[in-house]
Amino acid sequence: MSVVDLIRKKRDGKALKPSEIRFLVRGATTGEIPTYQLSAWLMAVLLRGMSSDETDTLTQAMTDSGSRLDLSTITAPKVDKHSTGGVGDKTSPVLAPLAAACGVVVPMMSGRGLGHTGGTLDKLESIPGFQTDLAPEETLRILDTVGCCLIGQTKMLAPADRVLYALRDVTATVESIPLIAASIMSKKLAVDLDGLVLDVTVGLGAFMKNVSEARELADRLVAIGEASGLRMRAVLTAMDTPRGRAVGNALEIAECIATLRGEGPKDLEAVSVELAARMVEAAGLETSLEASRGRVRSALKGGDGLEKLREIVEAQGGDPRVIDNPRRLPTAPSVEPVTATRPGYLTAVDAELIGRATNVLGAGRDQLDQMIDHAVGAVMKVTLGESVRVGDPVVDLHHRNAHGLDEARQLISQAVRIDDVPPATATLILDTVA
Amino acid sequence: MSVVDLIRKKRDGKALKPSEIRFLVRGATTGEIPTYQLSAWLMAVLLRGMSSDETDTLTQAMTDSGSRLDLSTITAPKVDKHSTGGVGDKTSPVLAPLAAACGVVVPMMSGRGLGHTGGTLDKLESIPGFQTDLAPEETLRILDTVGCCLIGQTKMLAPADRVLYALRDVTATVESIPLIAASIMSKKLAVDLDGLVLDVTVGLGAFMKNVSEARELADRLVAIGEASGLRMRAVLTAMDTPRGRAVGNALEIAECIATLRGEGPKDLEAVSVELAARMVEAAGLETSLEASRGRVRSALKGGDGLEKLREIVEAQGGDPRVIDNPRRLPTAPSVEPVTATRPGYLTAVDAELIGRATNVLGAGRDQLDQMIDHAVGAVMKVTLGESVRVGDPVVDLHHRNAHGLDEARQLISQAVRIDDVPPATATLILDTVA
Repeated sequence: MSVVDLIRKKRDGKALKPSEIRFLVRGATTGEIPTYQLSAWLMAVLLRGMSSDETDTLTQAMTDSGSRLDLSTITAPKVDKHSTGGVGDKTSPVLAPLAAACGVVVPMMSGRGLGHTGGTLDKLESIPGFQTDLAPEETLRILDTVGCCLIGQTKMLAPADRVLYALRDVTATVESIPLIAASIMSKKLAVDLDGLVLDVTVGLGAFMKNVSEARELADRLVAIGEASGLRMRAVLTAMDTPRGRAVGNALEIAECIATLRGEGPKDLEAVSVELAARMVEAAGLETSLEASRGRVRSALKGGDGLEKLREIVEAQGGDPRVIDNPRRLPTAPSVEPVTATRPGYLTAVDAELIGRATNVLGAGRDQLDQMIDHAVGAVMKVTLGESVRVGDPVVDLHHRNAHGLDEARQLISQAVRIDDVPPATATLILDTVA
Repeated sequence: MSVVDLIRKKRDGKALKPSEIRFLVRGATTGEIPTYQLSAWLMAVLLRGMSSDETDTLTQAMTDSGSRLDLSTITAPKVDKHSTGGVGDKTSPVLAPLAAACGVVVPMMSGRGLGHTGGTLDKLESIPGFQTDLAPEETLRILDTVGCCLIGQTKMLAPADRVLYALRDVTATVESIPLIAASIMSKKLAVDLDGLVLDVTVGLGAFMKNVSEARELADRLVAIGEASGLRMRAVLTAMDTPRGRAVGNALEIAECIATLRGEGPKDLEAVSVELAARMVEAAGLETSLEASRGRVRSALKGGDGLEKLREIVEAQGGDPRVIDNPRRLPTAPSVEPVTATRPGYLTAVDAELIGRATNVLGAGRDQLDQMIDHAVGAVMKVTLGESVRVGDPVVDLHHRNAHGLDEARQLISQAVRIDDVPPATATLILDTVA
């Protein structure tokens, strides 16, 4: 099989055969196909697209490039959630304990932050002692006893995706719906789940900038999962402004704990409940979404979610005292407000700029090997639609020795918009699929 | 400047700024930009296109990536010819001496054969002793005394093109009109020519498969040349069937000599005269194309072209006795005919298949470092429209110890079509530009 012929075929808008796609994925994994040919093919895919069949095959071939996480000894329904990411997106540490408290087994695999978006693993690791790199038998043991495990992807899972993703990142071939879908689902199909709930984020702080793109991605993801026998649910959620008030690792964990206590921001609570309810429903624990919602709300109100988080933290080696005393999380030595320079209503907060500002303070990374500072970040003091006077603090910057402070302040000023007229009410849940 | 941003810009169909294109070409030349980024950009260019301004800048940047051949000491008008290539395309050794005999200074730079198409350098090197790799001062001396020099491109000329071409070849990004145009013209602009005549071949044996593509390429080439002050002329010529009767290096040189003697195939003579006439006209030696044609025809009839070829061969170290005795060229030890298996008229000869057949015999190469056999090849014994009986030889295969003979015979059988009804008369000159 000639790689040039396969690139040419895709370049000319034709669909590749399953054997051809598998040949490319195998060559990418072993390194036998040079990166300059892979990147030309990726660009052709981005511009010419892929059929559903091609995307299915690509996903399956990427899954088959590595090993699987065998959870067959656990008979209870196993459901994971995946978010396409965003700024301040911290639903995982809220909804995973909630769903587990309702009886769902949640083997949740998360990633690290890159660019302006944060990563669940980084956030969890701000809890002193918390381990995200667990051996398969340890994962199984915790799932069996606690019902939820929050871990990182092992290197054995879909190695083809790591090769292709690294290449996409440097060749402007990230923003392709079939490639995004295959990347996400190849890793999920390597774990034997019964169901998967997707949070497809839309807006300034997300990869998908508009609803129609997001719906297309959700449709592809749902179709791939269903073809493999998974019960799939997708929710399109708004990500123009950061989710919740806190952006930065320990600050976000503190907000998650507050939310499980019933004292968190309403948008974070609402999205977490919606997603957790779909996990319960996909697990077959309730027959309707409404009943599932009720069960999740009870777990939240009764404190079962909070207790489950405490169990998870303890099982994964973390200090469970952070649950009752979030000040045991790392805290930045200094806090400085960015204040309003005009009176009015807060009408917009650009999530991407806020994400970049917290990156500059040290909360994130631009390359995967960079160290991060778990303590620093930003906290919104005003929510969308609230009125401010000149000098009112709008955002608190939690910084260390003013590192990156000036640049962060500038980015925050650009991110925040204050107008004379209050904004229209924003919709949180934009659409649902399946 | 971020390479990813430039790839993304082109991917999204936007035009790159001159500084951005120059940055990419510089990075390609020095190797600072990795090939996986260059190939993604090349695929984006192929699928999204390039504006005229972008193509001009790309060409100029590629020219500037190397050194120039300074011919300023020669005051007579200097005109080269470039063909986009084909099977049996041997006009150069015919028209260069003809144009030089008419007073044009012809500093002709040619390439080697690759894939199914032959290369002028390979053909010339079948003349015992003929040198195509000359130092600039030697080139100048021969141009000054003989008026024509048939040489290869030095490595110093447009090195960016070598990098990009090698990459395009393995990433299915060859067939892009702006990239083809920039590749051709970057090398021509590195030689200080007064004019350039283009033979844009169209058909089964050429890169351009139809007239509209070929016209687009011709327009681009003419525009780039004119922007640099060259007098440009382009002719679109048919390349469905091999040009002339012989395909293979020494066999083609013998056919060129016969043509300059007035005894060659009529299609080869006609195209050579048309192109040489445009060189004379572009050089300003005649005021009309018709007068230029007359001058070229006289040079052909009077034998001045043949004498000029003898001078060129001698000046470049070749054995001039081949002119009077072409049997001094390398000859294959065996000749075997492929015969007609049905009676009728010869209606089609697939140039690409004939090219592949002679490659298989050893006349060409698939990789640039392969050795070739100058003696082997194929000679058409019947021309299009002639009638044949069963058993009549249609093509003679000149082979060495039956090397590749069976496969070549099979390819020839596929290439040749015999029907009950003769074909319509084929047009040789399809169009002209400028």
